[in-house]
Amino acid sequence: MNTDRLRRLLSEVQSGKRTVDEAVEVLKVLPFEALDDATVDHHRQVRRGFPEVILGEGKTADQILSIVRSMTEKGENVLITRIEEDKMAVLRKVFPDIQYNPRSRTATLVDKPIEITGKGTILILTAGTTDIPVAEEAMVTAQMMGNEVEMICDVGVAGIHRLLHHRERIMKAHVLIVVAGMEGALPSVVGGLVNRPVIAVPTSTGYGTSFQGVTALLGMLNSCAAGVTVVNIDNGFGAGYTASLINRP
Amino acid sequence: MNTDRLRRLLSEVQSGKRTVDEAVEVLKVLPFEALDDATVDHHRQVRRGFPEVILGEGKTADQILSIVRSMTEKGENVLITRIEEDKMAVLRKVFPDIQYNPRSRTATLVDKPIEITGKGTILILTAGTTDIPVAEEAMVTAQMMGNEVEMICDVGVAGIHRLLHHRERIMKAHVLIVVAGMEGALPSVVGGLVNRPVIAVPTSTGYGTSFQGVTALLGMLNSCAAGVTVVNIDNGFGAGYTASLINRP
Amino acid sequence: MNTDRLRRLLSEVQSGKRTVDEAVEVLKVLPFEALDDATVDHHRQVRRGFPEVILGEGKTADQILSIVRSMTEKGENVLITRIEEDKMAVLRKVFPDIQYNPRSRTATLVDKPIEITGKGTILILTAGTTDIPVAEEAMVTAQMMGNEVEMICDVGVAGIHRLLHHRERIMKAHVLIVVAGMEGALPSVVGGLVNRPVIAVPTSTGYGTSFQGVTALLGMLNSCAAGVTVVNIDNGFGAGYTASLINRP
Amino acid sequence: MNTDRLRRLLSEVQSGKRTVDEAVEVLKVLPFEALDDATVDHHRQVRRGFPEVILGEGKTADQILSIVRSMTEKGENVLITRIEEDKMAVLRKVFPDIQYNPRSRTATLVDKPIEITGKGTILILTAGTTDIPVAEEAMVTAQMMGNEVEMICDVGVAGIHRLLHHRERIMKAHVLIVVAGMEGALPSVVGGLVNRPVIAVPTSTGYGTSFQGVTALLGMLNSCAAGVTVVNIDNGFGAGYTASLINRP
Amino acid sequence: MNTDRLRRLLSEVQSGKRTVDEAVEVLKVLPFEALDDATVDHHRQVRRGFPEVILGEGKTADQILSIVRSMTEKGENVLITRIEEDKMAVLRKVFPDIQYNPRSRTATLVDKPIEITGKGTILILTAGTTDIPVAEEAMVTAQMMGNEVEMICDVGVAGIHRLLHHRERIMKAHVLIVVAGMEGALPSVVGGLVNRPVIAVPTSTGYGTSFQGVTALLGMLNSCAAGVTVVNIDNGFGAGYTASLINRP
Amino acid sequence: MNTDRLRRLLSEVQSGKRTVDEAVEVLKVLPFEALDDATVDHHRQVRRGFPEVILGEGKTADQILSIVRSMTEKGENVLITRIEEDKMAVLRKVFPDIQYNPRSRTATLVDKPIEITGKGTILILTAGTTDIPVAEEAMVTAQMMGNEVEMICDVGVAGIHRLLHHRERIMKAHVLIVVAGMEGALPSVVGGLVNRPVIAVPTSTGYGTSFQGVTALLGMLNSCAAGVTVVNIDNGFGAGYTASLINRP
Amino acid sequence: MNTDRLRRLLSEVQSGKRTVDEAVEVLKVLPFEALDDATVDHHRQVRRGFPEVILGEGKTADQILSIVRSMTEKGENVLITRIEEDKMAVLRKVFPDIQYNPRSRTATLVDKPIEITGKGTILILTAGTTDIPVAEEAMVTAQMMGNEVEMICDVGVAGIHRLLHHRERIMKAHVLIVVAGMEGALPSVVGGLVNRPVIAVPTSTGYGTSFQGVTALLGMLNSCAAGVTVVNIDNGFGAGYTASLINRP
Amino acid sequence: MNTDRLRRLLSEVQSGKRTVDEAVEVLKVLPFEALDDATVDHHRQVRRGFPEVILGEGKTADQILSIVRSMTEKGENVLITRIEEDKMAVLRKVFPDIQYNPRSRTATLVDKPIEITGKGTILILTAGTTDIPVAEEAMVTAQMMGNEVEMICDVGVAGIHRLLHHRERIMKAHVLIVVAGMEGALPSVVGGLVNRPVIAVPTSTGYGTSFQGVTALLGMLNSCAAGVTVVNIDNGFGAGYTASLINRP
Repeated sequence: MNTDRLRRLLSEVQSGKRTVDEAVEVLKVLPFEALDDATVDHHRQVRRGFPEVILGEGKTADQILSIVRSMTEKGENVLITRIEEDKMAVLRKVFPDIQYNPRSRTATLVDKPIEITGKGTILILTAGTTDIPVAEEAMVTAQMMGNEVEMICDVGVAGIHRLLHHRERIMKAHVLIVVAGMEGALPSVVGGLVNRPVIAVPTSTGYGTSFQGVTALLGMLNSCAAGVTVVNIDNGFGAGYTASLINRP
Repeated sequence: MNTDRLRRLLSEVQSGKRTVDEAVEVLKVLPFEALDDATVDHHRQVRRGFPEVILGEGKTADQILSIVRSMTEKGENVLITRIEEDKMAVLRKVFPDIQYNPRSRTATLVDKPIEITGKGTILILTAGTTDIPVAEEAMVTAQMMGNEVEMICDVGVAGIHRLLHHRERIMKAHVLIVVAGMEGALPSVVGGLVNRPVIAVPTSTGYGTSFQGVTALLGMLNSCAAGVTVVNIDNGFGAGYTASLINRP
Repeated sequence: MNTDRLRRLLSEVQSGKRTVDEAVEVLKVLPFEALDDATVDHHRQVRRGFPEVILGEGKTADQILSIVRSMTEKGENVLITRIEEDKMAVLRKVFPDIQYNPRSRTATLVDKPIEITGKGTILILTAGTTDIPVAEEAMVTAQMMGNEVEMICDVGVAGIHRLLHHRERIMKAHVLIVVAGMEGALPSVVGGLVNRPVIAVPTSTGYGTSFQGVTALLGMLNSCAAGVTVVNIDNGFGAGYTASLINRP
Repeated sequence: MNTDRLRRLLSEVQSGKRTVDEAVEVLKVLPFEALDDATVDHHRQVRRGFPEVILGEGKTADQILSIVRSMTEKGENVLITRIEEDKMAVLRKVFPDIQYNPRSRTATLVDKPIEITGKGTILILTAGTTDIPVAEEAMVTAQMMGNEVEMICDVGVAGIHRLLHHRERIMKAHVLIVVAGMEGALPSVVGGLVNRPVIAVPTSTGYGTSFQGVTALLGMLNSCAAGVTVVNIDNGFGAGYTASLINRP
Repeated sequence: MNTDRLRRLLSEVQSGKRTVDEAVEVLKVLPFEALDDATVDHHRQVRRGFPEVILGEGKTADQILSIVRSMTEKGENVLITRIEEDKMAVLRKVFPDIQYNPRSRTATLVDKPIEITGKGTILILTAGTTDIPVAEEAMVTAQMMGNEVEMICDVGVAGIHRLLHHRERIMKAHVLIVVAGMEGALPSVVGGLVNRPVIAVPTSTGYGTSFQGVTALLGMLNSCAAGVTVVNIDNGFGAGYTASLINRP
Repeated sequence: MNTDRLRRLLSEVQSGKRTVDEAVEVLKVLPFEALDDATVDHHRQVRRGFPEVILGEGKTADQILSIVRSMTEKGENVLITRIEEDKMAVLRKVFPDIQYNPRSRTATLVDKPIEITGKGTILILTAGTTDIPVAEEAMVTAQMMGNEVEMICDVGVAGIHRLLHHRERIMKAHVLIVVAGMEGALPSVVGGLVNRPVIAVPTSTGYGTSFQGVTALLGMLNSCAAGVTVVNIDNGFGAGYTASLINRP
Repeated sequence: MNTDRLRRLLSEVQSGKRTVDEAVEVLKVLPFEALDDATVDHHRQVRRGFPEVILGEGKTADQILSIVRSMTEKGENVLITRIEEDKMAVLRKVFPDIQYNPRSRTATLVDKPIEITGKGTILILTAGTTDIPVAEEAMVTAQMMGNEVEMICDVGVAGIHRLLHHRERIMKAHVLIVVAGMEGALPSVVGGLVNRPVIAVPTSTGYGTSFQGVTALLGMLNSCAAGVTVVNIDNGFGAGYTASLINRP
Repeated sequence: MNTDRLRRLLSEVQSGKRTVDEAVEVLKVLPFEALDDATVDHHRQVRRGFPEVILGEGKTADQILSIVRSMTEKGENVLITRIEEDKMAVLRKVFPDIQYNPRSRTATLVDKPIEITGKGTILILTAGTTDIPVAEEAMVTAQMMGNEVEMICDVGVAGIHRLLHHRERIMKAHVLIVVAGMEGALPSVVGGLVNRPVIAVPTSTGYGTSFQGVTALLGMLNSCAAGVTVVNIDNGFGAGYTASLINRP
């Protein structure tokens, strides 16, 4: 129940059009309706400038299309994650401007220009080249949410000088996303170099006891550097989203 | 916000004591307060006849005493679970009628007589003698919630004739709770004999690969008999509580 | 050995047609036969109104067909679970009225009309859209067992207002089935709103540390709301079956 | 080094054909050669009546063919396990009498008639129909090793009367192999009925928390019935082999 | 219902003392009673010569005493497993002849002399000295069940020559029990030397990734030697019991 | 090597006091020294306003005392985490102003007044009362790092109205820390209400399948709400530290 | 920054071409550059004689080709691991001399002849035939790094005499690599025979509880023989590389 | 059977004192005896300069004393690992010169001076101070085996400059042992700096998801640096022993 309806009801009580008892009956079912509206209002406000996000996985091209349609009607930018290329044809027919990034498996539809609102740079680091797809999912997400994003790849801890080579950029970043598989040690080293929040993303690369990313995840949770928090395995979107929240002014 | 306050507010609008705008301001924060009240009201009503429940574990005797006090003021019966005997002295001084069951580690304070409101008998079966403490926690819970409860102990599947000996009582029960450790096979056999809901409770008895009840839990989740659902390891309270919900008329 | 055979045997002893020793020999093997008959009789009686159920997984279309045939001869309704569409052609040739639900992978053959015998409504809630196939398996099962079933989808806890929007229907339900993957938190919230039994079904949706439903399962077993019991991952059938048992008058 | 060579060497020393020093040099390398021969001799003797066994998995049809060839030259019967049908064509060309069992994925080549040397009957029980392939691997193995084998299928614990129906055959068996997936409860019930060794075989049937047979395995290891030992998941061969060793006179 | 009662009932029908209907009523409850008796009879017969076994763990000294009393009244020998020394005083007062083995934590009361009925020697091997307590539990069990038992300790695979030194005794044994912790490799080596059944017992010795015996258990389940079956971690009793069943003539 | 030393060296080269070759020798070992100094300098600067932190666990009271001494000499505030009360006496003798919080097991020594530099409020929520110790560790950490911190306890998801009651404070917070054990569902609900970063802290409360916090951890990693990141089990310090980094202007 | 640049800078200061302040500015960024150069130099030197290594997995044929190209320009030998045959065509067109080993999935390009620089023989042992691909990856790696390598296959512990047959070669080896799946027992036996370092490589062969090599890995980590260290599952390259490091003079 | 006995036997055959048949009988049992002797001889020779090692854990002070006695009679140095201080009194009475290291829980008895025979320095690095006990066990072991050992503590990856500060010592070491708990990342960084074998030792330090060292172990097994091998959790002895084998000339 929005404020207008509420005001109208109260005016009717004031004017004698409705009895107090009638109004009580109406207001008794208010709470949940009201919560609904309030939350939606709140969300609309706080999420201003955010794109709408669709998880492509587990949805057909037609289902995705229909969601995109309803979103673009509201004039929102759209980000689709975990969408395979074979579903893009259906979308491209209706939205010829939709962009697809095959490495990160993301599609983006930018209706209104993205304004850079983030306070500083979000820097994404990867330990290896196989971590790049997850890193790019984070990058696309953060860019769609209005951030300057930089990426430095293949600076794993077994070649520590390669990492230190980028020390200045690392120290200048406002938020850092560190993507790593195998032993997942990179966030600890980076976390020790900076005093900014580090979001660690374990990836499912590796073999044998990498256990599809579990080893990297455990390593990151046990990081000896303070300031490191962790998201689910391969969850580049979650890292990019959280980094954007942190980077908001 | 309860109905009285709401009615008073509306009357003030009606009588001109408050403007519509003032009332809107008041009602804008209503939803969550209202939800609060509504839920509490609802709970009060549906839980009529239920005891108040306190988890003793992790609380000091004094903390428990203070909670019991506030509950008895409302005239509710009280059930305390997972409470060690050494905390009882403090409680007994203030509530000399409190009963303690050392095997199930439960304490009960019955202020108003428990009325049997359950539709049928709740039958609790245990595979071994070491499962009895958990079974008694379920029993005390179900009794406090107004049920006839029967218990048959030590009828594990390795002596199938002992179980079948009780076949008639098993088939007459309205809800069954089956408590077992080790391989947790009893619920499957019982579930195959009856067409009533079977709540399986794994216990942390056993050694080696019993893994403190995980093996029993997994066995129960994989029961080849339909109609079996499972609660957490050693969760006699949860089983007794759910059985009581099922047994309500 | 049924009562008739027993009576005939005793009459033969009475009339001298058989000696006592002969009868003893016959009766010595009685126990297990008797158990067999008794159980079958018992099952027949208590399961009146239940369909026959076939697990399609791991059976060929021909094997399924032959089981369906023997069941329909007894005039029973038939429910087949976990059956892939490619096996349906064989069944449709012989049973043109067989219905297939591709989402839940269930097939149903209704020979005698299903009578609604359940006491109240069984409400099925899903956290996300990917949980719907498992929810529909539960729904079909409960409907075939004579229940009114309602379903509310996509009311996961990250949008709590969407869930609370349906509060009245939730509170009116007689039994609730809550289907959720990922963190499996929905049953706890629902269990806190109602005082009816909640059957939680973890689903294998999610990625990374969802571990094919294990995380959801663990979350549900540790539910902080009393009244929640759990079935195996993706076991919609088990949930629908147990809910039906609970809902029987 | 076999006895003949040893005798010849000593004779040469005795006759002066070789010096003591020369013989010492020869005998210094004796131990390991001797162990080799001794073990082979020992094996040859104790394994009399056993077939040669080839694990088909991970070998090409040609590799298998070449091993079969060398074995048949010694006049041994041959058992091939875990061999897919598509490898049989190559074998059938050379050995037209080779028999293939597609359910158990075993092939057998019987050159000399199998003599029944086992002391009693080996009885194989399965909990469900999906356990039959593993059970048949055990059956074929035990038959090739000279045993009478019986099988009773689909007597899972959720229909205890079906199991008890076969009580006499169960009690007469000399060794029992119990094959079960899901909760793996059948060996406990059977182990409680008999006083003969029970070999439990977990199978990888089931879904969700069956964890490809791990749950069944754990259940069996925790069996509350004494006399139950366990083999690896789906290891029908190991069960049939051990049962045969136990059944030897 | 035993045969005598059955015969008397039938005679009463024959003589007209009871009507057929009365007898049917009596016999209707027969199955389960009968099963009970039958099973007990069967057990009594097949277990002739076996001791009664009490699991001491989780029972008070008084509970154990009372069970021992009822057993000795029937003239049975008694074996108590997993009993701590502090409970022995109570037992010794009443049964001064009771023997306690502190290493294996077993107590034995031998009323009638144990007759050696096993067909051959049961040989117990341990990988290390810390495995001896479990090995002795197996030894005591097998001795109480009428077997010749030999033990060879500390012949782990890292000193293969120590094991092979005992090759003749190993090859002469009728049944072998191999007790090992850490990597649990000994059963594979022993299983490759003999053609007799090998029962592998993992022990909870070791540290770190020995995971309280799980590593040894897994190693044994994956033994590359056929003829090896496995019992639960530290389950010396189960191994001794099964070995005795195998060794029975 | 700091800038002063470097400048002095270069001046000596300029003035001819040192040859180029001598200077090269000195500068050849510069890199690592320099890195060392640079990092320390950098750290000093960025960490301005942060306390020095000592992990008390695994250190003796004397070891802690000696570290505290060296820190206070530099005029830094000190935070000691995971320190048991019995070690405080030694510290109190030397530092009578040291404060101890027994619930969070933290000790704090505030030499220079803590200035509130954080941009907004850090709000800490706990699902249950047993989560409070971990929450307080987070609170003390964030307070020592110059933040306004609020805490709301016992608002678990099974009583959703209690949580929603605090909706306004939740929506106003700049960073949120959500502490929960058992199923760990609270961060998902909170994450769905706000658009600020949520740091989830699993706690080791619960029993059975809570697995000492692993279930809560997994639930949090699989949160269906974006914006949630996770730290190690019971790592209140890490959560407070990261929240402070995020909250810096 | 290399020495030449440093010397030039200092000369400019000496000669007055640059002021001290200018030089300080240049030298302030020195540390990380210097580290970079130093490390690269160091690596170049210590790795003299080593091939360049490319992990083929997760790279396209074109990506691999481009890396190979840049390496061969420096005149280095090249080893590509985990490369599937279908990527070889692209490489062969440009490098007709490239050798492919399909079993180990390695490709090698030898531009300058490999000099044997290793001190002794590296001996590779495998437990079964299915372990050979991993063993060959180790072999190719060690050969490319300048070692004499020998291999003995199929000497698993279940046929201990086959292993002991090769005792002399085993005892003569300078470093040993032992490759085994299933229970992973072979390294313990070998480690007990020699006093040289043994590198154990678990393989993902086996089924059921082999858990894709985890059981073998755990067995090896718990080896009762000192001198055994372990690498990741199927990591033949890592074993060959480490063995080569150990074998360097 | 040693060479002398063999020679005497052959001489008796030569001289006619024994017949060939008699000699054959004697030699038939030779293999295993011979293996025994040979292995012992071999071990004696290759282990020259090594101390005798006793695992103190699980042995009483008296048992340890008796083993030490027999060893010192042969003039060997003795190393006892995992021995608690309370057992030292018994040993000190008999061996007043025995040295005890309480941190590493090792005792050493040096009868003949330890000669440094290792080729280079063994360098031990620890990530934290809590890793020192395990590091010292490695150090004592390697020293007793005749090596120069250096240790650098508390150089974890979160403070990378502290590690790099010791770069020269790291690069000069012949073998490296890296001891780390928590995320176990240090071996990867060290392995990337050197071209010498790195033995990684996970420790059971940490809390929550450190899982008593499992996380560190998994991180080390997945090290992205080649040349790293791993031992069991807290196995300082194994690391020191293997490093010594590698360091032998």
